[in-house]
Amino acid sequence: MRRVSITGVGLTQVSEHWERSLTDLFVEAAAKAIDDAGGEDPEAIYVSSSGAPFIQRQLNLGAMVADALGMAGTPALTVEAGAAGGAIALQEGVRAVASGLYDCVLVGGVEKASDASPEEIAGFLSMPEDQEYTAYTGITNFGLNALIYRQYLERFGVRQEEIAMLAVRCHEHAEGCPHAMYPFKLSLERILSSPFEADPIHVLECSGIGDGAAAVVIQPSRGEGGEVEVAAYSTSTDRVHLTERPDITTFEAVKRASDRALRMAGISRRDVDLVELHDETTITGIISLEDMGFAERGKGTSLLAGEGIEAPQINTFGGLKARGNPVGATGLYQVVEVTMQLRGEAGRCQVDGAEIGLAESLGGLGSTCAITILRRS
Amino acid sequence: MRRVSITGVGLTQVSEHWERSLTDLFVEAAAKAIDDAGGEDPEAIYVSSSGAPFIQRQLNLGAMVADALGMAGTPALTVEAGAAGGAIALQEGVRAVASGLYDCVLVGGVEKASDASPEEIAGFLSMPEDQEYTAYTGITNFGLNALIYRQYLERFGVRQEEIAMLAVRCHEHAEGCPHAMYPFKLSLERILSSPFEADPIHVLECSGIGDGAAAVVIQPSRGEGGEVEVAAYSTSTDRVHLTERPDITTFEAVKRASDRALRMAGISRRDVDLVELHDETTITGIISLEDMGFAERGKGTSLLAGEGIEAPQINTFGGLKARGNPVGATGLYQVVEVTMQLRGEAGRCQVDGAEIGLAESLGGLGSTCAITILRRS
Repeated sequence: MRRVSITGVGLTQVSEHWERSLTDLFVEAAAKAIDDAGGEDPEAIYVSSSGAPFIQRQLNLGAMVADALGMAGTPALTVEAGAAGGAIALQEGVRAVASGLYDCVLVGGVEKASDASPEEIAGFLSMPEDQEYTAYTGITNFGLNALIYRQYLERFGVRQEEIAMLAVRCHEHAEGCPHAMYPFKLSLERILSSPFEADPIHVLECSGIGDGAAAVVIQPSRGEGGEVEVAAYSTSTDRVHLTERPDITTFEAVKRASDRALRMAGISRRDVDLVELHDETTITGIISLEDMGFAERGKGTSLLAGEGIEAPQINTFGGLKARGNPVGATGLYQVVEVTMQLRGEAGRCQVDGAEIGLAESLGGLGSTCAITILRRS
Repeated sequence: MRRVSITGVGLTQVSEHWERSLTDLFVEAAAKAIDDAGGEDPEAIYVSSSGAPFIQRQLNLGAMVADALGMAGTPALTVEAGAAGGAIALQEGVRAVASGLYDCVLVGGVEKASDASPEEIAGFLSMPEDQEYTAYTGITNFGLNALIYRQYLERFGVRQEEIAMLAVRCHEHAEGCPHAMYPFKLSLERILSSPFEADPIHVLECSGIGDGAAAVVIQPSRGEGGEVEVAAYSTSTDRVHLTERPDITTFEAVKRASDRALRMAGISRRDVDLVELHDETTITGIISLEDMGFAERGKGTSLLAGEGIEAPQINTFGGLKARGNPVGATGLYQVVEVTMQLRGEAGRCQVDGAEIGLAESLGGLGSTCAITILRRS
């Protein structure tokens, strides 16, 4: 397998793009990525979108975006794995280049939630759970998060103020970020006085669902140094129903995927300079930090306790909370953001001297986890 | 890249499976395929389903089926490309094994259309077309087929009786096939006296949408002879809107993908013993035969003119028309069927001495085409 690098990145602001279509958004991000990589036409296109078949009633999005890019003829397909779809589409694209099949692949994610009503979006967010067992009861995705949150609070004697600090940090990082949906600070008081989304989760502890597209170009590494290499990637799954898991305050898929990816990259956790977390809610983010081994069980909030976040830096552009969460595109936003950091092009969000970054994506409430590790060569 | 073989196959009958769920169907086909391959646990699972997010409101189907198979932990994802999704999922799985990443991969497709109303199914079938340009006008997938059909009849002076013979042949082949949805003969008179689905297409010229699942296990070839090797595969796309194509009576994506696949396999069209066609309607099948080069432009029906079908044998288990069309699973039904033929396990559908088989899948009305060529080693 050849070493491969991310040679181009592009994204749109996460926002409510009322005036633009799903393909418009994809084309903006993809054209930027292709241009950034030097303009070479990709030989294949991998698309991630979770909502397109439900919200826009659009299938065959691969051919749609190939055509919209003026690249009809190019092989194209869509990959879906809930909100981990973007990261998993990346992995498929990386494999296609690493194996020598292609020399240039475009991977892009797109979501346009603003075409749906708030009720439809609530339904959409529970679609990665089992429709016949879990979702049909009417429990929402944030409701499931709330079950975990409550058990975590009780088991580990952690205060909600400590967990909600993750949202505070995310908004600190997003401040002034041009592509963030909510590029401003929020105080702990403001967050904890916001209405309940699902008791005990406040609405301002939940990621902001938005429209957006992010894309990358993948090519073989040239071995010249200064490239952003895909050092490792891994996917794992877990029991889908929370009721089938021995412990709902831990995500086994996150443990397995992160262990495997760190081994594949040949690095330890201390080597990781920044982590883009799947903070669908504050509690998901905190548990993810623990399961990836950056904190002990029940101690995830310790990483937020100081004035700033301890190494590794977390959600450097605001994460799902403040940059926003365009579901099927979120994993690719993370990858683009890590790439920007490793290139030193993160502006006021820059983590000094960043050399290794990790992105964590979840599909469903921990039933799918994809980890990607990028390294500056 | 290593050579890879299909070492296990499984399928369910295409039918209306009222009493069974999407995952039930997948598990039946997947368990058969794993058992058929000798029982080794797959290292990754690729799923194809077009309808799940729309009909069942189910995303994250990869984790769902991994869990249902008792394989929670195994990396899993869903691939979508309209009715070409099954074939393209296969290609992703083949690549993952050929590259050396995995030694054993499960690829399965599943669809359960009977959970939807006839109106929803009509909507579902037009979802691979552009929702903002084509589908919103209310034209159905079969309506688009009708535009092509009418132009083909006029341009080439072919009679509808000649085209509809494809459906007659399909039903001849399906007779007695245990997994076919419509395992019985239909006369030309019966077909042409059935109501119009979209003038000039009669309802009995259209593929039968049904529930079903088909799965294969892919492993490295052992080089022992008698294996069913994946000799070649290719995907291409085309302009999505018929209005943007210079000629709607030909599918450029089929030409490109089949040319490339035949080159990759190092064979000529004469070497192909059987073809599983994407006969979404009779006209789609006829044009596909021409675009794959098995007949000249306007002469596709010549292959049906004799008492039996000339070499290559076509739709040996009845094709989409008579075996049935479980959309996202259809491409994998074709691959399983070709494998059964090359193994000599096709029962009364057996093509004597079959050594090379080709499967053609379309996503959208020719905007995506995936070709797979299998060869007995």
